[in-house]
Amino acid sequence: MLDTTVSPLPTSVTDNGDPVGHNRSDREPIAPDGWPVLGQRYEVPARHGRAVRLKQGQAIKIINTHGLQVCDTWAFKADDLSEFMSMEHARAFIDRIIPQPGDPLVSNRRRPIMTLLADTSPGVHDTLIAACDAYRYQNLGVHEYHDNCADNMRLALKAIGLRAREVPQPFNLWMNIPVGADNGIQWLPPVSKAGDHVVLRAEMDCVVVMSACPQDIVPINNKQPVEVHFEVLASA
Amino acid sequence: MLDTTVSPLPTSVTDNGDPVGHNRSDREPIAPDGWPVLGQRYEVPARHGRAVRLKQGQAIKIINTHGLQVCDTWAFKADDLSEFMSMEHARAFIDRIIPQPGDPLVSNRRRPIMTLLADTSPGVHDTLIAACDAYRYQNLGVHEYHDNCADNMRLALKAIGLRAREVPQPFNLWMNIPVGADNGIQWLPPVSKAGDHVVLRAEMDCVVVMSACPQDIVPINNKQPVEVHFEVLASA
Repeated sequence: MLDTTVSPLPTSVTDNGDPVGHNRSDREPIAPDGWPVLGQRYEVPARHGRAVRLKQGQAIKIINTHGLQVCDTWAFKADDLSEFMSMEHARAFIDRIIPQPGDPLVSNRRRPIMTLLADTSPGVHDTLIAACDAYRYQNLGVHEYHDNCADNMRLALKAIGLRAREVPQPFNLWMNIPVGADNGIQWLPPVSKAGDHVVLRAEMDCVVVMSACPQDIVPINNKQPVEVHFEVLASA
Repeated sequence: MLDTTVSPLPTSVTDNGDPVGHNRSDREPIAPDGWPVLGQRYEVPARHGRAVRLKQGQAIKIINTHGLQVCDTWAFKADDLSEFMSMEHARAFIDRIIPQPGDPLVSNRRRPIMTLLADTSPGVHDTLIAACDAYRYQNLGVHEYHDNCADNMRLALKAIGLRAREVPQPFNLWMNIPVGADNGIQWLPPVSKAGDHVVLRAEMDCVVVMSACPQDIVPINNKQPVEVHFEVLASA
């Protein structure tokens, strides 16, 4: 049952860009300052988030290790987190609702912050659905704290000493939300396979945040949230 | 030609929620405090914005006076503008990319802030495309200030003494952006006719902002931006 009339959540905290709840995402950075070892494979644990810094020209390879996992992905300009990869601007820039290899991904100032360089999966991703958050699970009938991508983004940034003013619409890698001719959407498991990956090149110094989506009620992760991995490459 | 490498815009001002440029939208409020005379017909002049306050249970009728005009529309919670009607949350809530009569429109806290009650047009609206802004027109080759919906939102709020932290994805009334089976989008003129209107009921005390979209380069307003009108109704 939907219950949208009463909210026991400390929403005034969220308003300031802080998470509603906690998991380990704020205590397990890849490095205190977020800088990666180039070429090293890092894990985004199931239901958790990680942030990593990229210099302009470097690339990040994000790997769907087990094949049926959604990875919510954000990018923020390193020295000004109020500029970020924005799906509503990206869609207008590329005239598509799902980016394809070669597509620039623009920021809310309509300049490329990343480019989708490569994609070994069938290319089914989502740009339409907000990051899951505490309200989402409350609406789905969960009364305790549930890990969620919005908090994972906030916590992963906090782990490297950063804070964003808002939770932008993420680039939901491998999320399978087909849009029908009637404008209806469906929530389906990914069509990717184990080991599929995408490569995104940084077009400016930026911070990339990933959340291994903890959604286990609707089937977008095949109801089995698992880990994903990533590597930062010197160039691409 | 796209030129996204150089930005002469004073973006640091925009970061703080202020407009990049100006038109009359900040000097012509419907009333200094934004409260409407119920039942009175107000104009949103061509290329400009207006803000109006609604109490919970009141409704706003927005009229496509000439038929081929897009009206970018936002709603903010009256006593906390960090909560607002959010298309990325609304799409997930209604399982559709275009709201239909009867659909609740939820906020970024996933509770209804408005409900789309009635729509005399064919129901072609958009929730996917960011409000046009100074960067958009710069990318389209316009080198002078061009009226834009993002600034209109900021200026119309300023006209009644308010300020929002961000420019949310608007509910773009009558904007005709069909999504193809290949996930591509098109930019087409509205399919509505003169006098078509929608009715939106406020589910909480809120501020509604409208911008008569000044886009005159791509054909979404049939390249002839004109005015729209609105009325606030005691109930609906």
